[in-house]
This record gives sequence, structure tokens and C-alpha cells, in this order.
Amino acid sequence: MTATATTGTTTVRAWGTPGFQEPLEPVTIERRALREDDVRIRIEFAGICHSDIHTMRGEWGAREYPLVPGHEIVGIVEEVGAGVTSRTPGDRVGVGCFVNSCGQCHACEQGEISYCEQGPVVTYGGVDRYADGEYTQGGYSQEIIVREAFTVAIPAGLDPAAAAPLLCAGITTYSPLKHWGAGPGRRVGIVGMGGLGHVGVKIAAAMGAEVTVFSHSDRKRDDALAFGATRHVSTADGLPEDLLNHFDLILNTVSVDLDTTAYLSLLRFDGALVQLGLPGAPLQAPARMFTQARRSLSGSLVGGIRETQEMLDFCAEHGVTAEIELIDAPAINEAYDRTIAADVRYRFVIDAATF
Amino acid sequence: MTATATTGTTTVRAWGTPGFQEPLEPVTIERRALREDDVRIRIEFAGICHSDIHTMRGEWGAREYPLVPGHEIVGIVEEVGAGVTSRTPGDRVGVGCFVNSCGQCHACEQGEISYCEQGPVVTYGGVDRYADGEYTQGGYSQEIIVREAFTVAIPAGLDPAAAAPLLCAGITTYSPLKHWGAGPGRRVGIVGMGGLGHVGVKIAAAMGAEVTVFSHSDRKRDDALAFGATRHVSTADGLPEDLLNHFDLILNTVSVDLDTTAYLSLLRFDGALVQLGLPGAPLQAPARMFTQARRSLSGSLVGGIRETQEMLDFCAEHGVTAEIELIDAPAINEAYDRTIAADVRYRFVIDAATF
Repeated sequence: MTATATTGTTTVRAWGTPGFQEPLEPVTIERRALREDDVRIRIEFAGICHSDIHTMRGEWGAREYPLVPGHEIVGIVEEVGAGVTSRTPGDRVGVGCFVNSCGQCHACEQGEISYCEQGPVVTYGGVDRYADGEYTQGGYSQEIIVREAFTVAIPAGLDPAAAAPLLCAGITTYSPLKHWGAGPGRRVGIVGMGGLGHVGVKIAAAMGAEVTVFSHSDRKRDDALAFGATRHVSTADGLPEDLLNHFDLILNTVSVDLDTTAYLSLLRFDGALVQLGLPGAPLQAPARMFTQARRSLSGSLVGGIRETQEMLDFCAEHGVTAEIELIDAPAINEAYDRTIAADVRYRFVIDAATF
Repeated sequence: MTATATTGTTTVRAWGTPGFQEPLEPVTIERRALREDDVRIRIEFAGICHSDIHTMRGEWGAREYPLVPGHEIVGIVEEVGAGVTSRTPGDRVGVGCFVNSCGQCHACEQGEISYCEQGPVVTYGGVDRYADGEYTQGGYSQEIIVREAFTVAIPAGLDPAAAAPLLCAGITTYSPLKHWGAGPGRRVGIVGMGGLGHVGVKIAAAMGAEVTVFSHSDRKRDDALAFGATRHVSTADGLPEDLLNHFDLILNTVSVDLDTTAYLSLLRFDGALVQLGLPGAPLQAPARMFTQARRSLSGSLVGGIRETQEMLDFCAEHGVTAEIELIDAPAINEAYDRTIAADVRYRFVIDAATF
């Protein structure tokens, strides 16, 4: 298992990439000595997020190596720092996309750490400049040490493996659904039904909204309806006329360039088109698409810790988890290929016992 | 004065254009016979809106002629239909940009008639397809007949001439300021300080917001500060670095193409950039400008009748009116030229006794 080094750090096994654009393989990393406000978590499950693949394949530039990805983490608290009050050894907790933030800006003051104006510290491949400048390493590992304030409790009712993707895909869709008022009487469109989208459909339906899925083909129609959508639109045939001025909210979960103007025209008065991914080309639409019906174009980035807890509690209450395929560590590289090929329904999760 | 025709219609004097792209001149038009829910208004003052000029000079295409513009109308109720309950002869009332709407759509149900999904009926140059298909003629005239529901009461404390521009410029700025929560502790930017912008500055300051004016030159700096702005930025020198992530709301009152990305970057968490004008080129910005701080790009179009009344009451309470130059009808064409040349501080209003 883990070995405590003389410096107080711990050497742990992990899977990561040893260099730029190299495949993932077993590596070892050091975890910091437990600080007063830290918890040590024995990881049980780590989800594979699309952004892991972009990062590890060097599509977003080179990083410091070895680099261990993973920001959809579920595990058991093994040890807590002297100042920790909300977590106890044995608790099942989650860690998501961020492990620190400035704590003082306009966004942090509202608990919206993902919008930290100084920049939140990402769970892997980031530098914790609000603490000691540590280079962060993610959840494809045996254990992680995280500030208590950046952990959430995994409710007892949730399957821990299927809950892991909620730490990123769950909060990334829950937060805008909540912010823009998804609920009974509200009409929500979800563009794309991959890792993010399929959780978004389930959550929006659980909130009581009328949900329509936009997908480039008909392949996932049955799944969409099973997840709670009332309608599935195959966009290969264009956007249906009867959906003009229809939606209160459309979440775009895909990162390909979309016809922003066409989707804006599907919004009714006060509707919002919310971007979750980052396509390459600028978003654009004529001014009249906005003035005509007070439509908005906006974006949303993950969500805060308090809201992540709220999302997990909501998911436990409504029986929402991700659809997952559980794999062992050696299958990670193949899982990356299959994710890129959209050959997964709907999220890979790694059994951390195999790291 | 007015003469009642045998058909029940009334022939009234007005100023309008007799044909496509012709200057305005005296014309006569027929006003419909008073219906049960109508009020007949003797017009006292009519403001000149920038959109009058675009329309009358044919820049937005040909219309039916003669055409009489004017949608910033203040006058005295002369006569009311049998079913009218809220207006009495002698009342001072206003009429703004719209004189009818479908009354049944998602927007109309909320009183937001300017966003009527079937299209509101504009005060001039429109067709009232929700009634008898009448071609509408505006406020540069002796009198107008309007449905009671599309009139507002002019509070006693407001100068009636200086209140006229509030019926368009006032509500067009008040509505987004209210919708996006301008008030104490909130930071508002106003881009452009013409007819719309100068009223927007006064209203935003009266709401208690911190107001910054963005103008292409320094010429109006003193006025901006006198109207309640705390800062004036001359955009000739670019946008100041210290305003990055600063604003909760920026209203763009100008119709020229703006660097949307640059202005979005001035918004802090949850801030909105709201377009009031209609520039020619599409608005565009990279997705990250939206996701980073949950910024929104939106638009706003005038406002509803209930909200127009609320705005007038607010302006009366806070002593807000437009800065105007009162002219006689024969000066209209010259006033159009001066408005285009930005040679007016800040709105022309026509004395309707001179029609």
C-alpha cells in the first residue's frame, strides 16, 4: 500500500503520462504531508472526463511530467488534519475539478470557486499558488490529499462508482440547470448526449423540466427517452420549425462549432443558450436574435463546492447517477480511444484498486 | 382644430413624409373612430427618436405613405370610449413604441408586450393585425387614438415636454437596468451617451448603482458626471485595464459595431453585456469569455406598459427627465440632420401645437 516518506510526504501509485503526448502508464507520485485543514482520501473510483484526454494527449499544450489526471474522484477518508471538523475517517467523500481558490474575490465570496477571479486551482496539472505552489496531481491514483473545504460528502444512497462522474459531469450540468431555473413548466434542450449530456438529461428531468435532446444521429434516441427526455431531435435533418421560440434554456454540452443563431432562435422570451464546452470558433449571432426576445448567450463552468454537495443530495434523492463502464487501470488508454470515438455509454470509471 | 368626418374618423394635421426618402412636411391623416376601449389624446409633445430618422429616410426600407413618425408622445385625454375605466378626459398620458400586441403569447401573458411572439404593433408604420388591420400613424400630429391599455399616466411632477423621451429612451434603458438588477453595490457601464444613454445614466445613478460612461471622446465628460456617473472613459484610448472583471452590467446604447469580446472582458462574475441597438455585423466572442465568469450577452427591446408606468413613477420620484431641445414642427428636418451629427444635448422634442 502506501509508504510514508521521511519528509512526511507519501509515495503513492498512480497512472499518468511520463511525458508530452505519451500514453498513460503506472507512475509513482508524492502526496504532501497532511496539513491542519487537509483530509487524506483512499481513492475508490476515478471517472474519465473528456478533458482528461485533451490534456493528456497534449492538445491543450505541454505540462510538467509525470502528470496524473482525474477530477471525478470518490474515496474514503483515511486521516484528517487537526483542524478538520466536517470529515471523519471512514466517511465516503468526493473531490471534483478544483482543490483550491483565492477565497476572497467576488466569486469566491459567493462560494462560486470555479469562477475565482484569480483562477481556481485545478485538481491536476495546476499550481496551488494560494498555498505552497504545489504542482497538483489528480485522481487516477491510490490516494489524494485535499483541503477539507474542497471535499463533498457522497450520500449513502448513491453507488460510489456511478457517482464519480457526478463530481464533474453532474455539477457541470446541474449548476446551469439550477441557475437558469429548470423545473416544472420549463422547457430545456440538451445539445449532445455524451458524458455530460446524459447526466444533464437525467437531472433536468428529475427537476421536472420538459427535456428535449438534440443529437447528430438517432442512435441514442431510446436512451434519451429512458433517461427522461420527452423528445429526441436528430439534427442531421436540421432543427424542427415547431421548436422556434420554444425553450427556456438550452445547454450545449458539445465542443464542436454550433450554429449559435439557429439555436438562439429556438429560445422563447428570456431564454438562455448556455455553452458548457469550448469550441474553436467564436460564437456569433446577429444583435436582433438577442433584442427580439431578450435572449441570452452565456456559459457555465462546473460549479461551487456547496452546489456540488446540493447536486449530490439531489441525485441521491432522485436516484440519479451516471451510466458507467467500470474498467481496470490497464484499460485506460483503450478507454481514451473509445471515448474519442463516442464508443461508451456513457462514462468510463476506473477501479482505483487496480492502480 | 380637428374635424370629425361623416364616417366617424377624424382628419388631423401632422408632419410626415409623403413618399420614400422625402423630407417631412405638413400632411393630413385620418384617425379612426373612437372604439369602446380607446382614448382620444390631444398631443402636446412628441420626441424625436433616432429610429424615426432611420425609418423616415428609408434606411429600413420603404413603407406606405404618407407616413407620420413619433413614438414618444405626451398629451391630454380628450375623450374616452364607453368601456374605458382608467383614463378620464383631462388626464395627461403618454404613448410609447407600441399600440397593440397579441395579448396571448408567453411574453404578453407577462405584460412584456414589446417581446410579443406574434410581433407587437408599432406606433407608426405598422399594421394592427390584432384589430382591423389599420396602418398606424405616429405622434408628430395633433392627436392620436390609442387603446386605453397602451397608455400610461404622466405623473404630475414631471415636465411634460422633458418626459416625452422617457416613453422610448426612458423605458428602453430602465427595463434592462431593472431586469439585470442595477442598484446599490452594482456596477453599471453605459456605452454611448446620446438620447438613450444620457437617460440611462440618470436612471442607473438614481437606482443607486455606480455608473461609468464609455464615450468615443471626452466632449460629454462633464455632462456624464453631472448626470450621476462616477467615471467617464474616453474609448479613443482603449479600455482601461483596471476595469477588467469590473461590471455587473454594461448597456450598449450605440448601434455601431463594438468589440464585443473586449466589453465582455470588463464584466465580473455573472455580469451581462446588453445590446439595445442593432449594429450591422453579428456580435461575436470566444466561448471562454462566457464560461470563464458565467458572463452573458443579451439584448433588450423597449419594455412593457406596466413597466413603463413604473419607470415614469420612478423618474417622478427621483426627478429624472431627458435633457431636451424644444422645437417647432418646421425645424424637424434640420433636427434630423443635427441628430445624425450628434449635435443635440440630448433629445429633440416637438411642440405639437405647431403641427
